[in-house]
Amino acid sequence: MRKVYTHAKLVTMATDVYASDGYSCQDNQSIAVEDGKIVALGHDAEALDWPSQSLNGKLVTPGFIDSHTHLVFAGNRAGEFEQRLNGVPYQTIAAQGGGILSTVKATRAASEATLLELAVPRANALIRDGVTTIEIKSGYGLTLEDELKMLRVAKSIDQHLPVNVSTTLLAAHALPPEYRNDADSYIDFVCHTMIPAAAEQQLADAVDVFCENIAFSVEQAERVFAAANAHGLKIKAHTEQLSDLGGSVAAAKAGALSVDHIEYLSEADVQVLAEYDTVATLLPGAFYFLRETQQPPIAALRESRVPMALATDFNPGTSPFASLTLMMNMASTLFGLTPKENLYGVTRHAAQALGLSHKGQIAVGFDADLAVWDCETPAELSYMVATAPLLGRIVNGDWYDEQGVRG
Amino acid sequence: MRKVYTHAKLVTMATDVYASDGYSCQDNQSIAVEDGKIVALGHDAEALDWPSQSLNGKLVTPGFIDSHTHLVFAGNRAGEFEQRLNGVPYQTIAAQGGGILSTVKATRAASEATLLELAVPRANALIRDGVTTIEIKSGYGLTLEDELKMLRVAKSIDQHLPVNVSTTLLAAHALPPEYRNDADSYIDFVCHTMIPAAAEQQLADAVDVFCENIAFSVEQAERVFAAANAHGLKIKAHTEQLSDLGGSVAAAKAGALSVDHIEYLSEADVQVLAEYDTVATLLPGAFYFLRETQQPPIAALRESRVPMALATDFNPGTSPFASLTLMMNMASTLFGLTPKENLYGVTRHAAQALGLSHKGQIAVGFDADLAVWDCETPAELSYMVATAPLLGRIVNGDWYDEQGVRG
Ligand SMILES: [Zn+2]
Ligand SMILES: [Zn+2]
Repeated sequence: MRKVYTHAKLVTMATDVYASDGYSCQDNQSIAVEDGKIVALGHDAEALDWPSQSLNGKLVTPGFIDSHTHLVFAGNRAGEFEQRLNGVPYQTIAAQGGGILSTVKATRAASEATLLELAVPRANALIRDGVTTIEIKSGYGLTLEDELKMLRVAKSIDQHLPVNVSTTLLAAHALPPEYRNDADSYIDFVCHTMIPAAAEQQLADAVDVFCENIAFSVEQAERVFAAANAHGLKIKAHTEQLSDLGGSVAAAKAGALSVDHIEYLSEADVQVLAEYDTVATLLPGAFYFLRETQQPPIAALRESRVPMALATDFNPGTSPFASLTLMMNMASTLFGLTPKENLYGVTRHAAQALGLSHKGQIAVGFDADLAVWDCETPAELSYMVATAPLLGRIVNGDWYDEQGVRG
Repeated sequence: MRKVYTHAKLVTMATDVYASDGYSCQDNQSIAVEDGKIVALGHDAEALDWPSQSLNGKLVTPGFIDSHTHLVFAGNRAGEFEQRLNGVPYQTIAAQGGGILSTVKATRAASEATLLELAVPRANALIRDGVTTIEIKSGYGLTLEDELKMLRVAKSIDQHLPVNVSTTLLAAHALPPEYRNDADSYIDFVCHTMIPAAAEQQLADAVDVFCENIAFSVEQAERVFAAANAHGLKIKAHTEQLSDLGGSVAAAKAGALSVDHIEYLSEADVQVLAEYDTVATLLPGAFYFLRETQQPPIAALRESRVPMALATDFNPGTSPFASLTLMMNMASTLFGLTPKENLYGVTRHAAQALGLSHKGQIAVGFDADLAVWDCETPAELSYMVATAPLLGRIVNGDWYDEQGVRG
C-alpha cells in the first residue's frame, strides 16, 4: 500500500520536548506512506507519483497513544459509586463484595466473547478521541487462566477495530482471595508460573506491579521485575500513588520503561528516574476522581528532564474516563502541564513508555499512525473538551473517518 | 404526528427529588406522542392503534436540558490558556487584549453567518450527549446591535439542529470599553434601550446579570431585574461566584427563576431561595477550570429543599466543556451530589430554571423530548465519562439517532 497524504499542517513531535521545532506547526506538508510506514516527507513525498489524498490544510499530529489502561473487565461499579455518594460507608460496600474484588469476580465469570463485547465500545471511545495505540493491562483475573484470558481478549481488539494494542500482564494488581494473608506465595506463583506462561504464549509485551501499602511491597515488586527481565518482558509499575514507598526507584533500577501515578515521588527519586531514562506517567483522571491533593513533582521532573507521559488509566474503580483529551485538560488544570507537555505526553513520551521506538513521531521510518484535527493549534486539544475536533485517523497508513470507518 | 414508543425502561422525574418514584426505573413502558406532546403512557399508550417504534428495553430519561450556556461567540482563547500555563502573567495577557474583551472584540467583528457556523458544532456536542434543550446567553456583544445579533443567532439554531433553544439577554455581562468607569450609564442603556428592544423583538426569554465585584453591583443588578420585570422577561443571575455580595437574594426577591454559580452563598441566604422557590444552578465546570476551593452550600440547599440544577456554563473563558454528563461526574466528584440529584439537575430542575413548565419530566401533557441510553441504571450517566452511551433522542416527538440523524 502506497499513498501520499498532502496539504497537512504537521506537528511532528520529532524533536525532544525542550526544542521548539517538534511542536511548531508546519504548513502544507506531504507524507508518503508505504506498508504502514512513513517513507518520505515534504518535497520528497510530493516527488512520488503515488495515489494521493488531501488533508485540506488540517492539523495533523502523531496518532495518540494511551499508554496505561485497564479497559478489559466485566461488571459495573456505578452502583457502588452511587452508594458512596449516598453516604454508605466504604466498609459496608466492601462487606457487600464491592471494590476491585467485585470486578475480579465479574471478570472471572465472563467469557472471552463477553469481555470483548464490553471492551470494544470503550476502545472505540478512545479511538474517536484520536487514539491509534492502546496499552491494555490484565489484573482482574488473578488466576493463571483468567489473566491469560484477559490478555487474549486485549490482543484480539486490533482484529475488530482500527487500532494498535500493547498488552501488559498486571497479575500483581491485587491479592486474590485464594491467597489471603499470603502475598509472598502469590508473588511466587506470579513469578514462576504466570510470567513464564504469558511470555511463552507471547500474550504480554510487559509486566506491571501495583506497588503500594494496600497492594504489594517493594521487595515483592522487585521479584516480579526480576522474573519479567528473565523472560524478556518489559517492565512498568504503579508506584508512589498513595505513599512514598520507593517503588519507582526499584522499578527504574530494574529497567522499567515507566513508573505511573507518582504523586508521592520525592525530588531525590526524580533524579534516579532521570539517570535511568525512565518515563514518568501522569494519571490525572485517578487524581481527580479520588480527590487527591498531593501533586506529582512536576517542577522537579521538568528540571531533571524526565519525560512525562499522560494516560487515561481507564478503569472502573478510580478513573472511568475514556478520553485522552479530557486527561490533557486535567493535566493542565490540575497539574499545570502546558499543552505542549500534554501533546508530548500522549505521543512521543507515551511511545517511550511502551518501548515503541517507531511510534509517537511524524518522521521517516516511523509508523504511519496519525490523527487529523479540526482546530488551528495543538493547544486547542488541551483546552476545549468534548467538542469532538477529530476529523479522522490514519492507522498503519490507512484512512479512517471520525467514526472509525475506513475511507 | 402520532406515534407510540414501546419497550422503554422509563425514569420519569415525575415526582419531586425527595420521592423515590421519579428516579426508579419502570420496565417495559410505552409512550404515546402526538404533535410533540406526550399524550398517554403505559397501557393507555399501548391501547392506541398508532405507528410504533420499540426502544428495545433501553433506559429512557427526559431529554437533557443545559440551562446555562454562552455558546454563541467568536474568537479563540486557547492561545491565552497556553500562555497562562507557560507562566505569562495575567496582566500581560490583559494588556495584549486578552480575557473576555478579546471574545467581545471577535464576536462584534463576526457576521451572523459566522457566529452560527461556530455555534452549530458546539450545540451538536451537547446534543450527542443527550441534550434536547439549550439555554444560550448573549453577553459578548455589549452594544445594542451586537447583543441582538447574538440572540438572533442563538434563536436560529433550532432551525439547523434538532434541539429546542431558550435565549437570555446577558447585556450586563461585562462593562464594554465604551463605558469604562461609567457602569451606571451602561446599566441605564441596558435598562432603557437593550431590554425593551430584546422584548419588543421577542429575541429573549429572560434577562441575566453578572453580579460580582469584577462586574456589576447588587444595586445595578436590581435595576436590570426591574427593567426585565417591566418588560415581561424572566430573570436569571450569575451570583456569589467569587464573593458573597448578596446578588442571589436580590435576584430571588425580584422573582428570578435561578441563581447560578453560588459557591459563596451563605446558609442564611439559602433560606431566602427556599422561600422564593428559586432554583440554585451549580456550574462545576467553572469551579474545576478556575481551581476554586469554596464549595457551594450543598448541605444547606438540601436541608432547605432548594431545587438544584446543573449546567455546563459552556464558554471560552472559564468552562470550555461541551458535555452535561461530564458536568454530572464533576458535580458528584467535586460537590458530592448524588447521581439522582444530578439527573434532576439536568431535567426537572433545569426546566424549572428556565421556566419551561412542560419540559424535564416524562408525564402526560409534557413535551415529548427524551433521551435513550445504552446503560442499565441512571447512575451510570454520572459515573463513566466519554463512553458515549447515547443511543438516540426524541425531540418534539421525532426520533433522531446518536448522530442527530432523523429516523
Ligand atoms: Zn492503573
Ligand atoms: Zn455563565
